[in-house]
Amino acid sequence: MSLLVTGSIGIDSVSTPHGEASEVLGGSAVYFGVAAGLFTDVRLVAVVGEDFPPAFRDQLTRDRIDLAGLETRAGSKTFRWSGKYSPDMNDRETLGVELNVLAEPGAKVPAAFQGSDVVFLANTHPVQQRETLGQVAKPKLSVLDTMDLWIDNERDELGKTIAAVDGVIINDAESLHLTGKSNVIDAGRAILGMGPRFVVVKKGEHGAVLVTGDSVTAIPAFPTTEVKDPTGAGDSFAGGMLGYLDQVGSFETDDLRRALVRGTVAASITIESFSLQRIAQVTADEVNARVKQFTAMLHID
Amino acid sequence: MSLLVTGSIGIDSVSTPHGEASEVLGGSAVYFGVAAGLFTDVRLVAVVGEDFPPAFRDQLTRDRIDLAGLETRAGSKTFRWSGKYSPDMNDRETLGVELNVLAEPGAKVPAAFQGSDVVFLANTHPVQQRETLGQVAKPKLSVLDTMDLWIDNERDELGKTIAAVDGVIINDAESLHLTGKSNVIDAGRAILGMGPRFVVVKKGEHGAVLVTGDSVTAIPAFPTTEVKDPTGAGDSFAGGMLGYLDQVGSFETDDLRRALVRGTVAASITIESFSLQRIAQVTADEVNARVKQFTAMLHID
Repeated sequence: MSLLVTGSIGIDSVSTPHGEASEVLGGSAVYFGVAAGLFTDVRLVAVVGEDFPPAFRDQLTRDRIDLAGLETRAGSKTFRWSGKYSPDMNDRETLGVELNVLAEPGAKVPAAFQGSDVVFLANTHPVQQRETLGQVAKPKLSVLDTMDLWIDNERDELGKTIAAVDGVIINDAESLHLTGKSNVIDAGRAILGMGPRFVVVKKGEHGAVLVTGDSVTAIPAFPTTEVKDPTGAGDSFAGGMLGYLDQVGSFETDDLRRALVRGTVAASITIESFSLQRIAQVTADEVNARVKQFTAMLHID
Repeated sequence: MSLLVTGSIGIDSVSTPHGEASEVLGGSAVYFGVAAGLFTDVRLVAVVGEDFPPAFRDQLTRDRIDLAGLETRAGSKTFRWSGKYSPDMNDRETLGVELNVLAEPGAKVPAAFQGSDVVFLANTHPVQQRETLGQVAKPKLSVLDTMDLWIDNERDELGKTIAAVDGVIINDAESLHLTGKSNVIDAGRAILGMGPRFVVVKKGEHGAVLVTGDSVTAIPAFPTTEVKDPTGAGDSFAGGMLGYLDQVGSFETDDLRRALVRGTVAASITIESFSLQRIAQVTADEVNARVKQFTAMLHID
């Protein structure tokens, strides 16, 4: 199969109780791509400015990511974000955002990528998500993420985009906000009612819930105390899920359940360091060992 | 084996977004006892006032609970609590507490109960917990719960009591408060350092974590949208765990992991109704079916 991701590439500065990282590689498409690259090859569609450091491009090239869809736009600047996490790291404050090139038209899907089988639309304007999806001829599986900004300001457009995809991966607060429900299972079912055939609600340190038409699977987060920087956890989760699904090429409920585990493991690796330090270095053996440890923990006779 | 529980018996009035219950049977020993009674016979040691309604006594008698240790104290009044849950039921406000007989000396362990194998000390003053434990000749397994009040005001005494038991079952916020840690796994390990050989941290709707010297098991809550009243969930959880452990008579890590599932299932049944309506009516077949459903959900190859 073949996996395409479209989303942001950013230059991040982040502060957590465990340290700081200044001007490091970040963005939803990056975290997704590196995590998915643990399982499959990844086609990245994104746009950066002419200030995008060559060292960052080299970093992405290492990670099974095809950069043919990475546009460097002359005269534009790369997206920048800076934030600070609370002492328990459950909340974060955005200190600064410069949308820069993200406020301009999105990147085009190159002809070579238009036959992609699996498509992930990371969080961005729902109309842009639909436009990107429309450039892929016949995806076998399409999944999106979104955020409060679009739920508040573009609800109708978001509804149309949700109706056009097979799956939604969304965080807990946003799932409740989108649906007006008070628990994530009800929220997942309400989102199913909008069109998709599965919904994954991400609960951060509390795990994730997969809701399909006839099943609910709740799993905890990987139990770790090595949390240095939660940035990118949600995108790494989606990358682990869809990278695995592209690898196995089957999207039944049991596949989705196994993918949930891979997403959980990918996220647990990302948060062990700032930026991509851990996730970009981890070996397939380490990933498999953690998958085995996690499924063994959950296997209670 | 034989299971003894000591804790409170109360007359509760509770309001949730789903309704209200006025002057119903409650208290930690009651929720624990009825849940444990799904798996084994239970010896209850508690004290009520002369106002304790005969109908409540009848309700307890039905549920495999031996009331030989239930003292009705002349001239005293039964403990009363009233509270109101927030719209999402993750917080509750105590509207009124009348300690009444709980402010007096605790109940004595009858001679017939002094050989009990498994002892649960529900939340109360740590000195009183130790006094009760001291009246049991040679428990094979002793476990306690506690709360902020004792962590704040009786830390030294609480430390001594924790050092005297085999296990601690405690909620997440209290585990962090007790240890000064920022995550529940570190908190569990810090509590192990005080003496016990296992710690279970209860995370409410987010599940539970079992920490032993060489293992961590995190599981989600049973995924349900049928939450009417969370009162008693934590005590039902402990009751399901220890009732199961008393039934199997073995306390190795794998037994504790299986017990964690039974605790989760017992809690999920309790919260489906006000007071004891559901948990006191549920059949063994229903409990077993839910245990199977939950372990199957968590079994991902």
